[in-house]
Amino acid sequence: MELKIIDGGVCAAKGFKASGTYCGVKNASNGITSDASPSTAHKNDVAMIVSDVMCSAAGVFTSNLVKGAPVVVTKNNLAASKGRAKAVIVNSGNANTCNNDGIRIAEEMCRLTAVALGIAPEEVIVASTGVIGLKMPIDPIVKAVPVLKETLSYEGNIAAATAIMTTDTVKKEYAVEFTVGGKVCRLGGMAKGSGMIHPNMATTLNFITTDCSVSPQMLQKALSEIVKITYNCLSVDGDQSTNDTCVLLSNGLAGNETISCEGEDFDIFKNALYEVMKNLTIMLAKDGEGASKLITCTCSGAPDLDTAIACAKSVIRSPLVKCAMFGEDANCGRIACAVGYAGADIDPDKLDIYISSAAGRLKTYENGLSLDFSEDTAAKILSEKEIEVLVCLNMGDVTATAWGCDLTYDYVKINGDYRS
Amino acid sequence: MELKIIDGGVCAAKGFKASGTYCGVKNASNGITSDASPSTAHKNDVAMIVSDVMCSAAGVFTSNLVKGAPVVVTKNNLAASKGRAKAVIVNSGNANTCNNDGIRIAEEMCRLTAVALGIAPEEVIVASTGVIGLKMPIDPIVKAVPVLKETLSYEGNIAAATAIMTTDTVKKEYAVEFTVGGKVCRLGGMAKGSGMIHPNMATTLNFITTDCSVSPQMLQKALSEIVKITYNCLSVDGDQSTNDTCVLLSNGLAGNETISCEGEDFDIFKNALYEVMKNLTIMLAKDGEGASKLITCTCSGAPDLDTAIACAKSVIRSPLVKCAMFGEDANCGRIACAVGYAGADIDPDKLDIYISSAAGRLKTYENGLSLDFSEDTAAKILSEKEIEVLVCLNMGDVTATAWGCDLTYDYVKINGDYRS
Repeated sequence: MELKIIDGGVCAAKGFKASGTYCGVKNASNGITSDASPSTAHKNDVAMIVSDVMCSAAGVFTSNLVKGAPVVVTKNNLAASKGRAKAVIVNSGNANTCNNDGIRIAEEMCRLTAVALGIAPEEVIVASTGVIGLKMPIDPIVKAVPVLKETLSYEGNIAAATAIMTTDTVKKEYAVEFTVGGKVCRLGGMAKGSGMIHPNMATTLNFITTDCSVSPQMLQKALSEIVKITYNCLSVDGDQSTNDTCVLLSNGLAGNETISCEGEDFDIFKNALYEVMKNLTIMLAKDGEGASKLITCTCSGAPDLDTAIACAKSVIRSPLVKCAMFGEDANCGRIACAVGYAGADIDPDKLDIYISSAAGRLKTYENGLSLDFSEDTAAKILSEKEIEVLVCLNMGDVTATAWGCDLTYDYVKINGDYRS
Repeated sequence: MELKIIDGGVCAAKGFKASGTYCGVKNASNGITSDASPSTAHKNDVAMIVSDVMCSAAGVFTSNLVKGAPVVVTKNNLAASKGRAKAVIVNSGNANTCNNDGIRIAEEMCRLTAVALGIAPEEVIVASTGVIGLKMPIDPIVKAVPVLKETLSYEGNIAAATAIMTTDTVKKEYAVEFTVGGKVCRLGGMAKGSGMIHPNMATTLNFITTDCSVSPQMLQKALSEIVKITYNCLSVDGDQSTNDTCVLLSNGLAGNETISCEGEDFDIFKNALYEVMKNLTIMLAKDGEGASKLITCTCSGAPDLDTAIACAKSVIRSPLVKCAMFGEDANCGRIACAVGYAGADIDPDKLDIYISSAAGRLKTYENGLSLDFSEDTAAKILSEKEIEVLVCLNMGDVTATAWGCDLTYDYVKINGDYRS
């Protein structure tokens, strides 16, 4: 299952165009209208992705009961189109959630896009991210749609990836090339997200495109499986968003025989999807709000996948572990503590813990007991920017990894005054 | 059910003596032995509570699978003594958890106390709090026990309450007087805890004493009921400790007829217990690590108690809500979001939200939608030191309250380097 990392993000796959522009939706939401016309002087805040031909489409969405209007409308559209879509419209700066008329606004975003592209409204995926509870103005979108259509390009991935950023400090794209049935396929994606990240069904906004031909049913199966071991193993702050959306579009332009059942081709496709989603997950963790370190927790020796995920994610979520990592303090009792309250049926007397980084690897707990380790070695390991915590349950042979970041002064600073 | 607030903490009830001293257990754990003798020059780190006569005893403990050795030993003792106890020995500076020989050390603490007092080891409650995974030295305890015994006093409550503090900035005591069957009874307690607070069965260390006569069975029933709506509704950081212990001792010296079934007397007793535990809970929340504000979330209109508790606690736990409170930013979308992911079966379209403080009260969400509220009024409300968030589900008539604090730079600072 050979994979080649390639450029191009959501435009890496054949037949996908994208564009992004500035429309001032955030200022307009706050009643500031002076600069509410499309422009390149500001960070992009609205993006479009369009496939040359109709796509199979799969989606995974937030399980938060308070849902963004775009989540509701996209789910309705995918049901109405029986898992087909041709375009995505997405904005940052306003989550279009908990506000009056949100559903009508999200539907209008689909309608405007559909009219411009000559397709049906239910063939449009809509998503929004930003402040919750703010009235969402449609005027900036009305003005932006023609600009987005005019500037659609096979190299538009960066313009689109920057448009979905909120507190993100870097754009997040990843793409790979692989071969199915002798045909070269490509799969690439973009993601946004920095805070309010503790996905339970998917996370933040993620759009993935592929030219590999996959039936809607198998596309959904692959996406759901891979979400569980990538995005759903990510936690920045334990807050699950109202707008989590992960959509995967397959337009089939690679020319392979459509994957419509399990087998070798499906495994190759899933492996490509895993690589892209795993790398986007790591980018999201690294760019967690205020993060100074990427923290990875791998739980091995678990009796089953759910146990491994629960333990790894509990460690990644723990504010005390996150603070210890920020302070480069090998307070591994906090790691043991977080495994103990993970809600999984583990044996605390079998627990081994290691900390690891480019500077080395150190066993700190064995059979549930703290070892008399070298604080100097531990400090050296924790001084690195990427830290791995290894938790071995010694109860089986299943492994899972979760990703997150440290908790820093900057997280508090960023989130003390997010709306202004 | 009239209650009078009185002084005296764990010594408020008749026949309870307490003492506290310094024995250097933390330094000794870290290999520093020079000052490991009992002294008054340092903050107390070990305490004793003794009843003049045998007590009924009830306990609630951490549900973390990684448990401190003292938790294991205390549970064993209560089982062996059939819910009777006469003394408590407790230290701060070392949690006696995840270390070699922890059980033996905890048992030795009981034995030393029992020998000094001429009672059986299983009549002793033992508890420890501090760093996890550090070898616990017994020498400082050996030297401290005679001092603790010698200095036992009916006014020793403050010496004991200060001895259990770790990152706590204030001691936590509360006591009330009430009447059962014509007899004046007293019930008082002390608590410690500042971080690693997200109890699931009890929290941190809490010792409550009463001279009201209650059978072991009814004592346990009252404690379990009241823990659920007080300590278990407290969250500082979402990290559940390995050493949570809440013990309630009743020595019967008030002379009332023993409460051994439900009825008016039991209700009066539970009300007194609720007042003490609720006020200790509020003290714990106010003194949360780095806290600058006490945050209370009351969820009303719930169909049942579990739903009300789940929603209130989810809001209190949310790092984004906590940061918004620190920043005095009325970002109430985060409150709606936290209610949505609480895991309770709520109707997001019925959700009302208010923020309230001494400066006033403001409705910010109605029927799940953000209102166009005055930011000036909101800022004035959030500038206070005690903030109440009111969440109304409009689905029934049950109410619950949860307590917590804001998330500040100081939380990160305190926990970046806790062990040194």
